[in-house]
Amino acid sequence: MRTIDWVDGAIEIIDQTALPAQLTVRRLTTVPELIEAIQSLAVRGAPALGVAGALGVALAAQTSTGAARDEQVAAVAAARPTAVNLAGGVDRAAARLPEGAAAVLAEALRLRDEEVASSAAMAARGADLLQERCGPAPRLLTHCNTGGLATVTGGTALAVVTELHRRGTLGGVIASETRPLLQGARLTAWELGRAGVPYRVAVDSAGPFLLARGEVDAVVVGADRICANGDVVNKIGTYSHALGAVRAGVPFVVVAPESTLDPQTPTGAEVPIEDRDGAEVLSFDGSSTAPPGAVGINPAFDVTPADLVTAIVTDTRIIQFAGA
Amino acid sequence: MRTIDWVDGAIEIIDQTALPAQLTVRRLTTVPELIEAIQSLAVRGAPALGVAGALGVALAAQTSTGAARDEQVAAVAAARPTAVNLAGGVDRAAARLPEGAAAVLAEALRLRDEEVASSAAMAARGADLLQERCGPAPRLLTHCNTGGLATVTGGTALAVVTELHRRGTLGGVIASETRPLLQGARLTAWELGRAGVPYRVAVDSAGPFLLARGEVDAVVVGADRICANGDVVNKIGTYSHALGAVRAGVPFVVVAPESTLDPQTPTGAEVPIEDRDGAEVLSFDGSSTAPPGAVGINPAFDVTPADLVTAIVTDTRIIQFAGA
Repeated sequence: MRTIDWVDGAIEIIDQTALPAQLTVRRLTTVPELIEAIQSLAVRGAPALGVAGALGVALAAQTSTGAARDEQVAAVAAARPTAVNLAGGVDRAAARLPEGAAAVLAEALRLRDEEVASSAAMAARGADLLQERCGPAPRLLTHCNTGGLATVTGGTALAVVTELHRRGTLGGVIASETRPLLQGARLTAWELGRAGVPYRVAVDSAGPFLLARGEVDAVVVGADRICANGDVVNKIGTYSHALGAVRAGVPFVVVAPESTLDPQTPTGAEVPIEDRDGAEVLSFDGSSTAPPGAVGINPAFDVTPADLVTAIVTDTRIIQFAGA
Repeated sequence: MRTIDWVDGAIEIIDQTALPAQLTVRRLTTVPELIEAIQSLAVRGAPALGVAGALGVALAAQTSTGAARDEQVAAVAAARPTAVNLAGGVDRAAARLPEGAAAVLAEALRLRDEEVASSAAMAARGADLLQERCGPAPRLLTHCNTGGLATVTGGTALAVVTELHRRGTLGGVIASETRPLLQGARLTAWELGRAGVPYRVAVDSAGPFLLARGEVDAVVVGADRICANGDVVNKIGTYSHALGAVRAGVPFVVVAPESTLDPQTPTGAEVPIEDRDGAEVLSFDGSSTAPPGAVGINPAFDVTPADLVTAIVTDTRIIQFAGA
């Protein structure tokens, strides 16, 4: 089962807003439908967004031409600002536009296939690293969702967790719930349950204390963009886990494909951080938490400075940081 | 309006589980009713729990005698383990048991009155300190609820916020929602709204990033217990805000009455941390977040090591830490 794919001339996605209650496939036949799906987080996760961007260009190429087509392509690239993969996937497919729609689709499908292969490579390399750094049965803390739902299939950080489980060497995993939209409690929990991996869910703010209390041997997370200097932009809450890991003397490991590296952006300070609707903070599943009149502040990502990062595991290498 | 008081021979509390939807006063006429109210967090907050403990002894003294009474007194003291005020309030009132029920009640009412006076003293001293440290209009981040609802009336950290607002010198306040039970989004937001103080609500994990982004001039929180070495035990999530404040070079200020200081406990490592039902993590205002079969891990408090604390403001003094 794939999170995103090209099926009979259109994009099909697992609708992540309906999980864990319902497993629903949505078919996207127009670019505006795709943009809505991206902005509502029906499809999300940096590698999956890269494929969505490339397939979005394929959709634009088969449904429009000229300036209208170019506008659609630009709109897909701008649907969400923070993950580098979305614009990267758009750019890569759009470079084939002069060759026609078939060439664009072929490029998008190549990107899809590369992301599938890179998940498998990261899983093996990351599992090796964690066993080497943390002993025979690492107890892990992860954040947001970085499993098959964030990629095409497999995953980034969560693929490392499931690989350790497959090897029989996972000491345990805590999924932080990832407010406000609960990608940890909803999506990571759902994926771990389906994979038969025992797990526990914690509130996000418990991470640093669980680290201080000695209950976690490593933090393993994904990334939406990794800057030239190693700053890691990822789901809000990643930075506090990194601060907690460093204070506890525990490795903080980032798992992301090479497609998430952005050498064009020097540091995290230059990355546009998406500020989402404050209403997401003030409600859950439609029920309000705060009193009427409350205002939410909702940065969707944060920046973990490179000096807090122990290692970045990609599909082709491990980038170790000085002193780690 | 008082959060907890003694009215016509029984304890009356504002039921904090019903806020912000409903303002309800609950009358507690027996010790088991009080214990249920404490454990369900209908009454909560270290200073309020101190008064609840003392009034609980008064309730025990008027409803039972001998071993039955002593058992009730012990049960109140043990209702929640982390805040030192609860057992402290019980011990103080229980010391008067040999003099009879009237003496016990008089002692409990003295504690109540002292907590009211100490809130006012902390508000003024804390506001002075923040203006001195952060300039004319400090922008503050606070966690959990430390207002009138956590005390008898007034508050600890939140009383400092409202005092700055009263002076016309508050630059802004962000309430972190405080998962899993949302004391920030529910209770602090409700109190700030009633006091006419403009505020914003953020998810807990956004605190360190908002600090890094330069949106906060000081973190101001309460405490459930302050150890002999200055370690601060407070609501889960406090520690990550402290890590974020130190990294951002921003003061981390704790506001708590002298009754929250526990010189008998050397460090945070010796404090019993209440691990509450994991189900609290897996739901949000009654709706489930995680899939069936999920397990929650739910430490209700964390320990902020003294080296992260800039200052502790009490009703009688400011304890400044070296290097702060």
